[in-house]
Amino acid sequence: MTYGGIEAGGTKWVCAIGGGPDDLRDTATFPTTTPEETIARAAAFFANDGSVAAVGIGSFGPIDIQPGSPTWGHITTTPKPGWANTDIASALGSALNVPIAVDTDVNAAALGEHRWGAAVGLDTFCYITVGTGIGGGGMANGRLMHGLLHPELGHMRIPHDRERDPFDGICPYHGDCLEGLASGEAIRARWGWAGEENVDEHIWHLEAEYLALGLVNVICTLSPEKIVLGGGVMKQPQLLPLVRKQVSELLAGYISAPELDGELDDYLVAPALGDRAGVLGSLELARNFARART
Amino acid sequence: MTYGGIEAGGTKWVCAIGGGPDDLRDTATFPTTTPEETIARAAAFFANDGSVAAVGIGSFGPIDIQPGSPTWGHITTTPKPGWANTDIASALGSALNVPIAVDTDVNAAALGEHRWGAAVGLDTFCYITVGTGIGGGGMANGRLMHGLLHPELGHMRIPHDRERDPFDGICPYHGDCLEGLASGEAIRARWGWAGEENVDEHIWHLEAEYLALGLVNVICTLSPEKIVLGGGVMKQPQLLPLVRKQVSELLAGYISAPELDGELDDYLVAPALGDRAGVLGSLELARNFARART
Repeated sequence: MTYGGIEAGGTKWVCAIGGGPDDLRDTATFPTTTPEETIARAAAFFANDGSVAAVGIGSFGPIDIQPGSPTWGHITTTPKPGWANTDIASALGSALNVPIAVDTDVNAAALGEHRWGAAVGLDTFCYITVGTGIGGGGMANGRLMHGLLHPELGHMRIPHDRERDPFDGICPYHGDCLEGLASGEAIRARWGWAGEENVDEHIWHLEAEYLALGLVNVICTLSPEKIVLGGGVMKQPQLLPLVRKQVSELLAGYISAPELDGELDDYLVAPALGDRAGVLGSLELARNFARART
Repeated sequence: MTYGGIEAGGTKWVCAIGGGPDDLRDTATFPTTTPEETIARAAAFFANDGSVAAVGIGSFGPIDIQPGSPTWGHITTTPKPGWANTDIASALGSALNVPIAVDTDVNAAALGEHRWGAAVGLDTFCYITVGTGIGGGGMANGRLMHGLLHPELGHMRIPHDRERDPFDGICPYHGDCLEGLASGEAIRARWGWAGEENVDEHIWHLEAEYLALGLVNVICTLSPEKIVLGGGVMKQPQLLPLVRKQVSELLAGYISAPELDGELDDYLVAPALGDRAGVLGSLELARNFARART
């Protein structure tokens, strides 16, 4: 069977048709413009192929992923202009006349890593993206994390020493939440960073400190077996080692598990699927959804 | 079938024999002294009855609850004198010659609330205790939260404005983590509070603020359908309403779910089983364990 996957991001959409990382028949990437135009481009891409049995969407959010909810498949309170209260799932489903599975972009990426990447065989783990924003998903007890809605990791509150870092944070809802202090947008606003590789030590030390505080809170709350860290900001090669060191220092030996001893090299890891985790996980969402229906 | 339950706390152990809240044949409560003496008293209580098919222990921690681990059933890195690296499960199992189920005190309480209390029918929720320390457990996707080890909610980091509250925190590992700032021990150390009912407004406003920061982080990480708040500190009658108000303000409308609109009266709740959640949940641990073995 052939499935379709869409990594529906706030900046771009990545679409793929196939069965997995070594079996992709076609892919397309286009910018996220208006909802109508963006959804129409995705629909045209899959319609042109004509073979997909189901499409999975891993979307930016917040998005309603509660089966049976009247606003299922709607992006809800996003500050992204034009996209609040947009129904992406039904719009695509009616255009293509195939079943649509929908989850968060980070849950989709987590699913991809669980099927083919760094989280194979794990029951409880997180996938966290540090890019324009900060988001997180994952599995708890072997299933994707949903709950009331879905995790919104980027909006947790962490210590913020305003003497060392007087920056107010950029979150329109919370100011200096984790995303407000440590997202790519925050680094851009604070330091003028434009996404390039950069060796300015104090930028990345501060960044590692905030990310480590967020990760420690995730570890204390969910007790994940592993955390996969993706997203554009994590591509700074010096960042992940700094984050590991800070997490280790913050935990201070309290949580006794061999995985948390030493350098955390196998505990805090980059996505094995790289940038394709989201779109491949979206394919897998479609496959799981189609299987559950038969 | 009759089961035994132990709420193994750092201050006292509560033991019960029976099948549920309306069917308790015998109970006993005694102080937590040395491991040998405390375990022997529990063993004598159950041996004297002679009818229990299995015993469930909901214990203070950190505790190794990983089935198959060589230190399964051991309390590990606790700062409680004499109790670090104590094997409580096998000691009791050999004394009684019945199967022993073991989990954290807060997971046991969560299980009790799930079976008979405030969390019936929920898949993903938390039980958080604010007492001498702060701990949290619950269910994710319909099963108790384990992961790498188990949640250690009390040790997350939250914002701490040292100008308003110069108190350093009392956690021997982390200083001003959530438990370090907001546990009963922290309130005692900061204000001289001795556990009595107290109407001093600034104590409880600050307490509500810290607890709300912790709860917001739990909401952002796990997206629970409900949070049950137990423990001695939560018995201050003015505290829960203050916590609800602060959580609502901190979320600032970002997470769109009907449960988070309004006063949060049905979202942040007291345990329906009151102080018996832990020991009743421990009975239920025993029942589930015995069932899974047959």
